[in-house]
Amino acid sequence: MELKDLLGGKGANLAEMMSVLQLPVPHGFTITTDACRAYMHGGWPKALDDEMSRQVASLEKKMGRKLGDADDPLLVSVRSGAKFSMPGMMDTVLNLGLNDKSVEGLARSTGNDRFAYDSYRRFISMYGRIVLGLDGEVFEHELEKAKTNANVQNDAEIPAEVLKQLCQVYKSAIAQQTGKPFPQDPAKQLRGAVEAVFRSWNGPRAIAYRVREKISHELGTAVNVQAMVFGNRDDNSGTGVGFTRNAATGDAKPYGDFLVNAQGEDVVAGIRNTEDLNALKRKFPVIHAELLGIFARLERHYKDMCDTEFTIEQGKLWMLQTRVGKRTGAAALKMAVDMVSPTGTGRSAWKISKNEAIMRVAADHLDQVLHPQFAKKIPALTKGLAASPGAAVGQVFFTADDAALAAVKGLDVILVRSETSPEDVHGMMIAKGILTSRGGLVSHAAVVARGWGTPAIVGADAVKIDGASFSVGDVVVREGDWLSLDGTTGEVMLGQLTLTASKPPKEFNTILEWSDVVRKGKLAVRANADTDEDARKARELGAEGIGLCRTEHMFLAADRLPVVRRMILASTPEEEYAAFEELRTVQKKDFAAILKEMSGLPVTVRLLDPPLHEFLPRIDELEIEKATKGLSKEDEDLLRAAHVWAEVNPMLGTRGVRLGVVKPGLYAMQVRALMEAADEVSSKGYEPIVEIMIPLTVTREELALARSWVEAVLSDINSRPVPKAKKGQKVVKRPKISIGTMIETPRAALRADELAEYADFFSFGTNDLTQMTFGFSRDDVESRLMPAYLEAGLLKRNPFETIDQNGVGELVFLAAQRGRKVKRSLKLGVCGEHGGDPESIDMFYRAGLNYVSCSPYRVPIARLSAAQAVIGTAKTETK
Amino acid sequence: MELKDLLGGKGANLAEMMSVLQLPVPHGFTITTDACRAYMHGGWPKALDDEMSRQVASLEKKMGRKLGDADDPLLVSVRSGAKFSMPGMMDTVLNLGLNDKSVEGLARSTGNDRFAYDSYRRFISMYGRIVLGLDGEVFEHELEKAKTNANVQNDAEIPAEVLKQLCQVYKSAIAQQTGKPFPQDPAKQLRGAVEAVFRSWNGPRAIAYRVREKISHELGTAVNVQAMVFGNRDDNSGTGVGFTRNAATGDAKPYGDFLVNAQGEDVVAGIRNTEDLNALKRKFPVIHAELLGIFARLERHYKDMCDTEFTIEQGKLWMLQTRVGKRTGAAALKMAVDMVSPTGTGRSAWKISKNEAIMRVAADHLDQVLHPQFAKKIPALTKGLAASPGAAVGQVFFTADDAALAAVKGLDVILVRSETSPEDVHGMMIAKGILTSRGGLVSHAAVVARGWGTPAIVGADAVKIDGASFSVGDVVVREGDWLSLDGTTGEVMLGQLTLTASKPPKEFNTILEWSDVVRKGKLAVRANADTDEDARKARELGAEGIGLCRTEHMFLAADRLPVVRRMILASTPEEEYAAFEELRTVQKKDFAAILKEMSGLPVTVRLLDPPLHEFLPRIDELEIEKATKGLSKEDEDLLRAAHVWAEVNPMLGTRGVRLGVVKPGLYAMQVRALMEAADEVSSKGYEPIVEIMIPLTVTREELALARSWVEAVLSDINSRPVPKAKKGQKVVKRPKISIGTMIETPRAALRADELAEYADFFSFGTNDLTQMTFGFSRDDVESRLMPAYLEAGLLKRNPFETIDQNGVGELVFLAAQRGRKVKRSLKLGVCGEHGGDPESIDMFYRAGLNYVSCSPYRVPIARLSAAQAVIGTAKTETK
Repeated sequence: MELKDLLGGKGANLAEMMSVLQLPVPHGFTITTDACRAYMHGGWPKALDDEMSRQVASLEKKMGRKLGDADDPLLVSVRSGAKFSMPGMMDTVLNLGLNDKSVEGLARSTGNDRFAYDSYRRFISMYGRIVLGLDGEVFEHELEKAKTNANVQNDAEIPAEVLKQLCQVYKSAIAQQTGKPFPQDPAKQLRGAVEAVFRSWNGPRAIAYRVREKISHELGTAVNVQAMVFGNRDDNSGTGVGFTRNAATGDAKPYGDFLVNAQGEDVVAGIRNTEDLNALKRKFPVIHAELLGIFARLERHYKDMCDTEFTIEQGKLWMLQTRVGKRTGAAALKMAVDMVSPTGTGRSAWKISKNEAIMRVAADHLDQVLHPQFAKKIPALTKGLAASPGAAVGQVFFTADDAALAAVKGLDVILVRSETSPEDVHGMMIAKGILTSRGGLVSHAAVVARGWGTPAIVGADAVKIDGASFSVGDVVVREGDWLSLDGTTGEVMLGQLTLTASKPPKEFNTILEWSDVVRKGKLAVRANADTDEDARKARELGAEGIGLCRTEHMFLAADRLPVVRRMILASTPEEEYAAFEELRTVQKKDFAAILKEMSGLPVTVRLLDPPLHEFLPRIDELEIEKATKGLSKEDEDLLRAAHVWAEVNPMLGTRGVRLGVVKPGLYAMQVRALMEAADEVSSKGYEPIVEIMIPLTVTREELALARSWVEAVLSDINSRPVPKAKKGQKVVKRPKISIGTMIETPRAALRADELAEYADFFSFGTNDLTQMTFGFSRDDVESRLMPAYLEAGLLKRNPFETIDQNGVGELVFLAAQRGRKVKRSLKLGVCGEHGGDPESIDMFYRAGLNYVSCSPYRVPIARLSAAQAVIGTAKTETK
Repeated sequence: MELKDLLGGKGANLAEMMSVLQLPVPHGFTITTDACRAYMHGGWPKALDDEMSRQVASLEKKMGRKLGDADDPLLVSVRSGAKFSMPGMMDTVLNLGLNDKSVEGLARSTGNDRFAYDSYRRFISMYGRIVLGLDGEVFEHELEKAKTNANVQNDAEIPAEVLKQLCQVYKSAIAQQTGKPFPQDPAKQLRGAVEAVFRSWNGPRAIAYRVREKISHELGTAVNVQAMVFGNRDDNSGTGVGFTRNAATGDAKPYGDFLVNAQGEDVVAGIRNTEDLNALKRKFPVIHAELLGIFARLERHYKDMCDTEFTIEQGKLWMLQTRVGKRTGAAALKMAVDMVSPTGTGRSAWKISKNEAIMRVAADHLDQVLHPQFAKKIPALTKGLAASPGAAVGQVFFTADDAALAAVKGLDVILVRSETSPEDVHGMMIAKGILTSRGGLVSHAAVVARGWGTPAIVGADAVKIDGASFSVGDVVVREGDWLSLDGTTGEVMLGQLTLTASKPPKEFNTILEWSDVVRKGKLAVRANADTDEDARKARELGAEGIGLCRTEHMFLAADRLPVVRRMILASTPEEEYAAFEELRTVQKKDFAAILKEMSGLPVTVRLLDPPLHEFLPRIDELEIEKATKGLSKEDEDLLRAAHVWAEVNPMLGTRGVRLGVVKPGLYAMQVRALMEAADEVSSKGYEPIVEIMIPLTVTREELALARSWVEAVLSDINSRPVPKAKKGQKVVKRPKISIGTMIETPRAALRADELAEYADFFSFGTNDLTQMTFGFSRDDVESRLMPAYLEAGLLKRNPFETIDQNGVGELVFLAAQRGRKVKRSLKLGVCGEHGGDPESIDMFYRAGLNYVSCSPYRVPIARLSAAQAVIGTAKTETK
């Protein structure tokens, strides 16, 4: 167990700052995550009261003051601090220890009535809101009334006397609403505040944040109790936040915000305009120098950019917290690369290794710099929660039906709803972007949009929807108006902003090149690509082959569909053969284009997988037409075929190799087209590397049969003369063709030993494997159930985004072991969407896979994640 | 390896008859199954030629004659003999060794020209058909022509000269059709015949038989080469088949058929009328006595009823083969019980143990005596293959559409098709019986009908279908005519025969009582029952509880459906609650009726499982009505709801506990209804034992949540006073209620350890587990793919009938282990249809399950199979 596990990030860092770095940190103590977990399982732990008393006594001794003292009281802050930073998600109580007596002591000891009562009224309202669960509105309202009565604009201008009255009003409000007086005993106050922090761990905001950030709900939070220092004491005091480097750009220059005579919440609330570090230098030159010195020590210690909170109390600098700072994608890349060169000089110089640099960059960072962005932004109309990243531009529609209709007409749609439900899915599916006025980060809209990669902003509560228009303040947006959404920041902008393709910074390639070195020979990255265009993009982005080339898209193109239908409708072998031949010609062209693009790299072609009814018209549409207008002979035939091929559960129906069994000749046709394409591009001097993949096998016998079809065609092709390359080009030889299968049913995973007898490679189809292992039809549950399941904690992750390590993952490990036991040389890969997910990639590496394959745009992320998996596993192994 | 594995059943028995029992068996040798397996994998084994030469030489020495000898030739028979008897499924060649020279030697040595040439023409035609693959028609045709020319009726009357000519004609026909002369070299003849027997192992008839009888395709057959003896030598010769007891009734009296001056094929072919053993006694009193003595020795040796083939050659008795005989269900029961009492007297008396008696009865035997039967049969119109057992009576329809329509009108339908395809499934589903004129035992019709338990006869090739009528010879049967099918025998009978409920013989109960003793405390048998009627039947048939009471049927009744729909359509919590309350009242009544029937026995109630759209009207029907006539407000609402709840793959959709999550309150309502029902029947003096089962859980969190709903209701119910039973009845106490879950997804099986934390019992839902493990939607693949898969050997069994031991079975074992590791007391059961399948029951017992649950009518079979599993496992363990 690490220190962070027990003390939380904040507590651990405070301990380090104080004991290792010897920075000026106010004394305090930390209540461990153990206590929080005990609380979650069985209520307030009895032993905690005694332990807290002991700690408070010790703190009082160190500070020479006592909590609640009527002369010179000790005040403390109570803050949450989880292992992983969850900014703004949990609760904080400041100025704890004030009561009707100690507030006077504070006034006397500081000689500042106004300060004392300002602190007290802040404490009462914070305590009321956070510990007692009252609506903050009541305190806000009284504050505004007081300001009006006192005829002042600013909180800081309210006279002491008015603040004193305000404290009374606040206390009455609490007594009235809770039926109990505001607690005067500081020990009771402390216990209440600690419990509130514990509780806040399971608050809806915190849960939603953890779901999104994939943090375990089991961890619990630590609680930091720290002696208060006051930036609002006088004009020789102040408070601020500081970054050791620029968190937005990555520039190696400290950066910060600062307010004179203020407490931390004022900086965050944005009520007064903050000043920058230059102003600090002008106003507090000595402290500015001290702070920069601390920044340097922090960076040297953590070997990373830190963000800090500091307070100046009557000319003395206190560090309230520090942590490795969050940063933008561009900044993360720049800092990681920069820090590989030494920072500082001489003995105090420090740097990180290339491996450390790789570990510093998160997949989300790459994602950010890869998404298209707005060429130029304009001030936001309003802001919501950034639920699904990316920029979207389109015309506004308010119902899923209208949106779907508009999309059919070719319009770019932004779907605006108060919230979404499974009824809206057809509209969400075609939307360029989604905006909702209600709901959080695991609302239906958020989960579904992220699943599809559609930019989305949710919970934009300033948006008031009224039929076919919405308003934000005075601005009214009507159906058809243009709107631009930045799903990465949550900004909603009026009008049709221009999108630019992303231009990743130069450090992007540096990190990826370093990553490639690390993972070379250990975990390759391929792409899923069905067209030459996708293949080109994949190669550009660093793919080392195609792990999944689906052939169904070649069947669905408008000019092929009639031929495919003729094949399905064929009533004689001759008709069927004629259709096969037509398809062979067009498939050959498609294959040739892809093989040309991928010359010299492997291309795994999956033989036809989807059920045949996907190529037929919809039954209900034809039935309605039949009932209303009557059908042509051709449509009658199609309707009959649609009925024959209709399936109750297509996911579990006549797909994959089963199609091969019921339509003998289909797979042979595809293999012939593919091998003829290979010959053709060979003769032009390209180097096609073909791998043939049989989908959905569940028994050894199926695979043996399908393999025999493929081998029959291969042996026929091999009996032809080898095509000659053009003059001056290297001699072409037909290479041995790998034949493999997908592992996408639980049975295939369990019987991998048998399948390995007839397979040169396995490719895990983790999408279907997840569907069948859970019994989750993605089409059905992802929109209906997943949001509810994630919010209720019934699932910790969406298993379609991140592989379910305990269930589906066990099948992957097991299949890899059983397969390799029979055939050591068995090549293993994954071509489900999990192939582009960092955490899943880590597991695939540990399971011994040779490659991952993902969509072309995820290739850079997969390259990085693969390297991280290699580094992370090596670390664990040497531990 | 047993002797039978290597020599086949026939070979092993011949060896035993000769060496152990010292019966008069013609000399010979057996080519092992090893050789056949080698042949199947790599063609004719080289070493086999030498080995055969050696064996032939040894046989020639023993017999003092040589194959092909021109003076006194040795002739041999070549017969298949697999480990498990496959009567009539593989090939036999008799009289081998005859050629143009040896036939004359035979004539001379026997002094019987006619006999020699009759044997030769039989050999040539058999060899032509079986070894050379010619159509038998050509030989039949020439035989008929010869009879006409010779002006005789009977084969036996054809003069020698004509037979001699016939041999020439036969040989010319062979030379013409194969391009090669009929082989004269006996060694070549022998090799050809042996190879033909090897090949016949993979003939379509044999494969189909093995699929049905669940015999492995891998075993291969042995080949028995035996010196010929001739029952057709003269009138002091003959041939017959004999049973040591009556195979139809089980009576302990020998029984047989016999023909003077004939070869075995004549007995089977039914050309001449056979005589019985009394005739044998009259004509060959000494031989009759010898035969009865042999029967007694055989029974004592095999401790079972044997069937034998014997031949008398010039007054000497030869035993050609023996095997433990096939028998009817009634006979099997009677013999098993009879043999527990001693047969014979003194030192030669023998008997079997009760355990052996139990092992002697097969599930199919019980099935036979349980099926309804015809009160009185009439001569069959024609006969086909008995594809699915049982008697069916109905009116004939020729298309699936017509059949479905007739069934809607309330008619009993017999569907008659030349063959069936997935297009016919809606008609097959409602048919009482199915008759096809084409197809074999694994044809579409056969597989689908067996899956549903619908009586079926297939391949009745005398049936000529012509539009809306069929004819058999001169008899014409028209649409709407009555027809009666006996699926157990393959008999098709005209008219509406009377069905009687089966009346099992008294031995039925004896065997089951013995079985119950054996399995007591080891493997219990429950039934799946959803109504009080089913429950009553189950109890009558010996069920020890209900393992699965589905609650969806309670929702589908005509008077409940509108309420269920109101629940689904509810737009406010109040509306929903009102619907829940209505449902609670009716469910309570249903539960009370079932609990009353099962008083004192456990009843496992599964909370609602099917997706909600199953309770809504079909979308396409409403859409058509909307397009043509318009919809009422109510139907509009239903249509909208149907769209909302529609699912792409309902099997993997919002079912089971997922429903509980999206419709909170639903499960609580059901539990409340159930517990109130329990209280009600308690107060009437019954003893309800309730177990509550949560369907389709995949995560621990789901089960914990669902369990908390159930426990909340239980604790509410428990806070009420315990209902008082009537006076004089024992005091009723509310017992602790078990709460468990189904294991029906691969993930639930894998994470059984986690689920066990919140479950008191697991019930394996092996139907769904099979669907998800294979990725087989039963609705889709069982009719479309299964026949093709079984026939092609892609699957050895239909995994929905017999559990897939290697895939699904591994998950069952694994879940049982993991669950019990966490909770030793975890009760385990199975409620899929496999719970009534003998082979599956054996696996469930080995996996450590406490009970199996099956449909009420399968309960007797499950009781027997459970005992057999216990006995069989104990045997294996002591080996």
